[in-house]
Amino acid sequence: MKRTLGTCYYPEHWPEETWQDDARRMVAAGLTWVRIGEFAWSRLEPNPGEMTLGWMDRAIETLGQAGLKVVLGTPTATPPRWMLDRHTDMLAIDAQGNPRKFGSRRHYCFSHAGYLEESRRITRLLAERYGASPYVAAWQTDNEYGCHDTTLSYSAAARTGFRTWLRSQYADIDALNSAWGNVFWSMEYRSFDDIDLPNMTVTEANPSHTMAFRRYSSDMVVRFNQAQVEEIRPHSSAPISHNYMGRITDFDHFEVGKDLEIATWDSYPLGFLEDRVGATPEHQRMYAQQGDPDFQAFHHDLYRAVGRGRWWVMEQQPGPVNWAPYNPAPLPGMVRLWTWEAFAHGAEAVCYFRWRQAPFAQEQMHAGLLRPDGQDAPAMQEVAEMTRELADAPEVQPGTAPVALIFDYASEWAWSTQPHGAHLNYFGIVFDVYRALRRAGLSVDILPPTALDFSEYKVVLAPGLMTLGSELKAALENAPCTVLLGPRTNARTHDFRIPTPLPPDFADLDVTVSRVESLRPDMPRPLVGGGAVTGYIEELEGEVPTILHTQLGQPCAVAQGNRIYCSAILDDTGLDRLMIALCARSDLSYRAMPVGVRTRRCGSEEFWFNHTDKPVETDMGTLPPASVLRRTI
Amino acid sequence: MKRTLGTCYYPEHWPEETWQDDARRMVAAGLTWVRIGEFAWSRLEPNPGEMTLGWMDRAIETLGQAGLKVVLGTPTATPPRWMLDRHTDMLAIDAQGNPRKFGSRRHYCFSHAGYLEESRRITRLLAERYGASPYVAAWQTDNEYGCHDTTLSYSAAARTGFRTWLRSQYADIDALNSAWGNVFWSMEYRSFDDIDLPNMTVTEANPSHTMAFRRYSSDMVVRFNQAQVEEIRPHSSAPISHNYMGRITDFDHFEVGKDLEIATWDSYPLGFLEDRVGATPEHQRMYAQQGDPDFQAFHHDLYRAVGRGRWWVMEQQPGPVNWAPYNPAPLPGMVRLWTWEAFAHGAEAVCYFRWRQAPFAQEQMHAGLLRPDGQDAPAMQEVAEMTRELADAPEVQPGTAPVALIFDYASEWAWSTQPHGAHLNYFGIVFDVYRALRRAGLSVDILPPTALDFSEYKVVLAPGLMTLGSELKAALENAPCTVLLGPRTNARTHDFRIPTPLPPDFADLDVTVSRVESLRPDMPRPLVGGGAVTGYIEELEGEVPTILHTQLGQPCAVAQGNRIYCSAILDDTGLDRLMIALCARSDLSYRAMPVGVRTRRCGSEEFWFNHTDKPVETDMGTLPPASVLRRTI
Amino acid sequence: MKRTLGTCYYPEHWPEETWQDDARRMVAAGLTWVRIGEFAWSRLEPNPGEMTLGWMDRAIETLGQAGLKVVLGTPTATPPRWMLDRHTDMLAIDAQGNPRKFGSRRHYCFSHAGYLEESRRITRLLAERYGASPYVAAWQTDNEYGCHDTTLSYSAAARTGFRTWLRSQYADIDALNSAWGNVFWSMEYRSFDDIDLPNMTVTEANPSHTMAFRRYSSDMVVRFNQAQVEEIRPHSSAPISHNYMGRITDFDHFEVGKDLEIATWDSYPLGFLEDRVGATPEHQRMYAQQGDPDFQAFHHDLYRAVGRGRWWVMEQQPGPVNWAPYNPAPLPGMVRLWTWEAFAHGAEAVCYFRWRQAPFAQEQMHAGLLRPDGQDAPAMQEVAEMTRELADAPEVQPGTAPVALIFDYASEWAWSTQPHGAHLNYFGIVFDVYRALRRAGLSVDILPPTALDFSEYKVVLAPGLMTLGSELKAALENAPCTVLLGPRTNARTHDFRIPTPLPPDFADLDVTVSRVESLRPDMPRPLVGGGAVTGYIEELEGEVPTILHTQLGQPCAVAQGNRIYCSAILDDTGLDRLMIALCARSDLSYRAMPVGVRTRRCGSEEFWFNHTDKPVETDMGTLPPASVLRRTI
Repeated sequence: MKRTLGTCYYPEHWPEETWQDDARRMVAAGLTWVRIGEFAWSRLEPNPGEMTLGWMDRAIETLGQAGLKVVLGTPTATPPRWMLDRHTDMLAIDAQGNPRKFGSRRHYCFSHAGYLEESRRITRLLAERYGASPYVAAWQTDNEYGCHDTTLSYSAAARTGFRTWLRSQYADIDALNSAWGNVFWSMEYRSFDDIDLPNMTVTEANPSHTMAFRRYSSDMVVRFNQAQVEEIRPHSSAPISHNYMGRITDFDHFEVGKDLEIATWDSYPLGFLEDRVGATPEHQRMYAQQGDPDFQAFHHDLYRAVGRGRWWVMEQQPGPVNWAPYNPAPLPGMVRLWTWEAFAHGAEAVCYFRWRQAPFAQEQMHAGLLRPDGQDAPAMQEVAEMTRELADAPEVQPGTAPVALIFDYASEWAWSTQPHGAHLNYFGIVFDVYRALRRAGLSVDILPPTALDFSEYKVVLAPGLMTLGSELKAALENAPCTVLLGPRTNARTHDFRIPTPLPPDFADLDVTVSRVESLRPDMPRPLVGGGAVTGYIEELEGEVPTILHTQLGQPCAVAQGNRIYCSAILDDTGLDRLMIALCARSDLSYRAMPVGVRTRRCGSEEFWFNHTDKPVETDMGTLPPASVLRRTI
Repeated sequence: MKRTLGTCYYPEHWPEETWQDDARRMVAAGLTWVRIGEFAWSRLEPNPGEMTLGWMDRAIETLGQAGLKVVLGTPTATPPRWMLDRHTDMLAIDAQGNPRKFGSRRHYCFSHAGYLEESRRITRLLAERYGASPYVAAWQTDNEYGCHDTTLSYSAAARTGFRTWLRSQYADIDALNSAWGNVFWSMEYRSFDDIDLPNMTVTEANPSHTMAFRRYSSDMVVRFNQAQVEEIRPHSSAPISHNYMGRITDFDHFEVGKDLEIATWDSYPLGFLEDRVGATPEHQRMYAQQGDPDFQAFHHDLYRAVGRGRWWVMEQQPGPVNWAPYNPAPLPGMVRLWTWEAFAHGAEAVCYFRWRQAPFAQEQMHAGLLRPDGQDAPAMQEVAEMTRELADAPEVQPGTAPVALIFDYASEWAWSTQPHGAHLNYFGIVFDVYRALRRAGLSVDILPPTALDFSEYKVVLAPGLMTLGSELKAALENAPCTVLLGPRTNARTHDFRIPTPLPPDFADLDVTVSRVESLRPDMPRPLVGGGAVTGYIEELEGEVPTILHTQLGQPCAVAQGNRIYCSAILDDTGLDRLMIALCARSDLSYRAMPVGVRTRRCGSEEFWFNHTDKPVETDMGTLPPASVLRRTI
Repeated sequence: MKRTLGTCYYPEHWPEETWQDDARRMVAAGLTWVRIGEFAWSRLEPNPGEMTLGWMDRAIETLGQAGLKVVLGTPTATPPRWMLDRHTDMLAIDAQGNPRKFGSRRHYCFSHAGYLEESRRITRLLAERYGASPYVAAWQTDNEYGCHDTTLSYSAAARTGFRTWLRSQYADIDALNSAWGNVFWSMEYRSFDDIDLPNMTVTEANPSHTMAFRRYSSDMVVRFNQAQVEEIRPHSSAPISHNYMGRITDFDHFEVGKDLEIATWDSYPLGFLEDRVGATPEHQRMYAQQGDPDFQAFHHDLYRAVGRGRWWVMEQQPGPVNWAPYNPAPLPGMVRLWTWEAFAHGAEAVCYFRWRQAPFAQEQMHAGLLRPDGQDAPAMQEVAEMTRELADAPEVQPGTAPVALIFDYASEWAWSTQPHGAHLNYFGIVFDVYRALRRAGLSVDILPPTALDFSEYKVVLAPGLMTLGSELKAALENAPCTVLLGPRTNARTHDFRIPTPLPPDFADLDVTVSRVESLRPDMPRPLVGGGAVTGYIEELEGEVPTILHTQLGQPCAVAQGNRIYCSAILDDTGLDRLMIALCARSDLSYRAMPVGVRTRRCGSEEFWFNHTDKPVETDMGTLPPASVLRRTI
């Protein structure tokens, strides 16, 4: 499949007489795709039941005639104001019990049956109208599920839905009481209807209760998305996608992805840097105008898995955004770098958000490819360069990486339910391992916890996999390759209990976690030979040889053949040493990357990226600042 | 007009038999004014409709007979408990939707029609009774509008009032939808009655919505004050004032001031230092017992403008207060320094708050001129010194400063609605420029955005003027003097949209802001020649010569003749360099002040103030710590 | 009385067939006591009125037959879910007005009459059933009153109760208005029914109002506990206890204790370190695996006073807990050290919490003596060592210390109502003095403010005693020993007013506090001779000789004979100097303890504890890390 570019466009924002010229300029810029429609409900149905689709017909026609392929979004992230009159209780309720009101977007509760039906209705109407359009070449459901903390809602609808869901999971209330250990503080229920949502309790709620609510809430997103897919499918053969947002982990993206043909995500490297990467101030200053060198790559690899090989960047930052704490401009070259990086990880398309900067409403300070006055914004030059370079670039060749890394949303919820130490979180643990793999020059495939076949990999890493199903456990036990586990592997059952025998209870390893410690982040425990434990360490029983240990003599990583158990959270130096040990046991060469430089193999191509603002010496020669080097291998 | 002193007194707090002695001691201390009544509603009307004004008659008589002039306050900042039974929905509602209950003060919503009428009623009764009193020489409306975050209320009354106000602004709902760009996220309304207040939205509300609510909320304060003035005017020829509080910017003080004869403010230099000045810890330590060297002066100059030349300090801190995070004592000499500073900026009167420290209720730790046991508190010595010095001091001579600085409340709301970078705020930007002018030894007039005649000034500065009306824009374009603009000049329309042509769109300058960046405060961009950009910078197009630029080559200030556009937020060193350039272009001499020393010209007098706790060498000789030097020029 | 050990056990958590073996292992480990029942309500009464006590009968029988003494807890900290159907308004309401929902524990409001009656009912049923049991050797009421911030509730029940309580205190509303100074901001009430709770006011509530609510709320806890005692007493001669939690100060533990025979507390040295000790990060790192060297001792001495000599540790941390921000493991030796420390301070029993780690619910990560899989956890070795050592240890001999330190819960509320400087708090001030006494090698008795006989002491210290009743004042004035007062002694009346004459108004001292300053913590005022004032200092009038003063010449401590008034908050060096002066005036020898080493005399025994992780040289020779030295004197 050809690597293509696109943009996000809002015909409803601009006079109809400008559409044709916009379309012409998009084509001239080398763009293939134009996404439209995802916030347009109040223009599609200005009054309940009164459809005004003429403008949309003409917009699609205009764009399509100009040679563009349309991605049509369902507008369900922005129900119009009148929807609240029809469904007065459809708003989500926050954890403090307050309604999340109309006036921005995503103002609905996933559990609300009435709104779910409205979502089906508008989707059906669009699918019926445009399912056969020659120009509608892909669909997008809703927009950025879960963004703005919208997965979890503590509404009456959620409470009712949760009770029904619990009934389906546990059948009888005694089974639930027993599974959750509700005897503990006389928390036993006599009926499913006694169960409330786990917010606003005097002290923490039962973690089994919290974890069940997290699973339920994720299922509601899956259900919501599935309903739209069910409405589109009968009317259209075009692929269906959703545009996920970076580091939104409150629902299971893999489960939503099962109903889609293409996974897409919205990549805002500078926007993410302050709040989502979790980096030190030094790191933030170093990459303020480039973004973190691994954060986007991680998501690229994640959504390649979510899309089962087919994935896009649906929204690519082209300049300063409006919504981060600080909003600098990208260094010259970074828009090109980010675009090539996506392709290096196997993207089929990269769409820039947005075509023309809107001079009004919430995102008026969000850069586009055009300025509000219609002039080219700086990114346009780099888009032109991309268009030239893509002309003779090879097709998308994802290939298989030598290294697999499992990412499990349920483990994220489990760590969040019971981090044991303040600041500990699953995403951070997995991402730190990912970064260490990248510092080692390795390309990585991210896998869902439902992946059971590891035959193509030299290494499978499953850090922090707190809730581990029996199938995955068996698959890992039987994997022919090197397997790295821990910390906290298999530390909780599905019902959020500590299992007996004690974790990890992993067939190939004579290791038992006998006790767990969490530590202040400012009191690292240094390792013999370099590096340190930070924040978390387990005491181990068993006879497995130690490969890393603290200066106090505590093992941090033990290994038996090609099975490694890491019993601590390590700093970067410690992780680098662990990766060296891992490579040594797995027939992988460790290539130490210069600071800020990353490499990625994709089929027969190798890419090198310099994410710094200075030239860097590498094996491939000197890389200029903010630059990409492509070569065939 | 003679410079006079006064105090704030609460006869209702003390046994009636002590009033006469208190009055005698006030006169003996040289005080002219005594403000009373502003919290006394429960004693004026202990039960609804039952007026008990006898004690007030006697208090006024006693004070007046002793030779004091009374400032009579309306008691509307503290409605009695029974008022809530009459108007159960009169409380303000905070941004999280919670009522702000009875039990302290300012527990009312400015939008509440019923309470507005009660406010008129009590004001009318007082005006009728005391309007002709020979002793009531001035009035005060309410007390510290907006203090304790009370301008914005999210009540049902506010919602209803806001809808009515929007109707008056936009006439038809489509006009509003179009002006606000509500198409953006399907936020379009079908009726004004669909519009809610812009709080508790899922993510940020439309900034046009927020800005409109800010304008509405300010108008409600103006309306409330106006109503009291309307009740007093027919009955009294005494001037009417209000006592504004430092750095309260949620309503337009100039608009309120239009209905008053005198502006007064409440000056608590040590109380302000931690929370309101916005200074570094080092600065707070350096001035812990003196207060910031510019914060009071800024407000003096501001309220001289609000009062159109007539202004007072109604409450002057005389010792430790109770309400700041830390409450040290002023250095010996500071009470005198603060008093002279007010007079140097043109004050007609300075009243110390309060006469005797109350041993009960919320402010029992707030120092007065007397201790709770009736002994003189330390400030009394400095008051006595002031009285001696004032005996032969000249009259109030405000004069006109060579430099004008525009302060615009709407721009404060605009920056707060959309700061673009965390921590950026309009007050801070203007105040930093003011401080730089003071470090240059310049006296400053602050002007409202309605000032259109700059003929008496050598320089007009309008930093950060984000919303710029067409009249002011024309006046600045035509100003005969040097004009300094930027950053963000004219960046938004009245409806909070980015205008086209892009800002600043200023006739005399070939400058266009093509892109905007905000930066972490810990990553300054150094300037060539000293100083740095901190937090914010714009990219400029156009052909205007650069006068300051970063080491990366970006212009920060450009100048064309006597028009300067500053396109960045600069640190103090950068601002000093900008002021030097400004003076050079404006026939002004730049006098570099020693650290902590400030000077002010007032008519034919020049004052020098040493705000530090050490002696400082100046052109005028050595200034002792916490001292004032007066001279005729 | 023999020093004994015990544990906390939850038979309802484990299969009945395991109880006997558990009991056998407890006895084998040398344990005497087993506490049960305190969270078991849903198993004792699974449906309203349906009692299922058979299992409890058998559990008591099994444990008792094995040779254990049972402490039976009333289960009122965990009302079952059905209780909320019977009493829909029984939940506490937090200060923001939100209900504190079911799903954890302590979900009740102390003011709720219906729940109070339910609490009496279940207590009565248990007392009737087990009051005569030969195995029930002690009772525990409820569990950790006030934990999770549950003393203060802003419910309708609390509002009603508060009004009734105020009526009983003030009889007539004018008396209350006058006492509180409600005239201040027109806060006067016309009826007790006008009075609301002091939360959610626009700015701070009247401190008299707040303080009254604090007193009321404490009284409600006393009433709740008293009701249970009244139900148990007629049926049982076994002593009744409550297990207080560390640094819970929202109710008066002495007042609750008056109705009990034994005071017990729950000692979690590592759990307390981050949030409750109030120490610097350096200190927290130094003692991360040992706990603060004084915090437990302080509580031991406190509960010895609460129990009028009879006290236990009811819950002793045996390994990592689950609920602190960070949860490290104790250093080897610390469980033994903590146990001996309790005995050194006069404990009759130390019970480890808990027997076996529960693999489910909120505390699944809370270590027990057994692991979740039933294996011995590391603490078991130290318990075995304790059992061996206790075999020939002497009986409990509390004795009397040479030094008395008064701790007054009302002063804690008073400081919290009006700290005057951010971060100032009474507990911290008293604890800092306690630590200084311990650094001086002194053993301390803590006394309630009702203690009036100081004849056995060489020194009485009463730091920060803000509200001082007339009886205690007279007793201190007449004390034959050295008395240390201040700062803020007698600074407020019972109604929270500043008294006249001004404080301290202490017969034997010619000292008047004429003014008070609070200071930023980062601007200490150095003392001549070492040490510094931090955060708070008073200006003094009077003729008493100064013993400590700042480099600015301000007195910080003055002394007249054996009366010392300390007018500032001092840092550790300053306090050490004050203790040296104190010892010199009191015939006490000052023994400077090495860092982290503490000593305690108990009858004829002297104990030395090394709380550090390194060997330390002392007068007694080298103490190994985390070690105890016992000797007879």
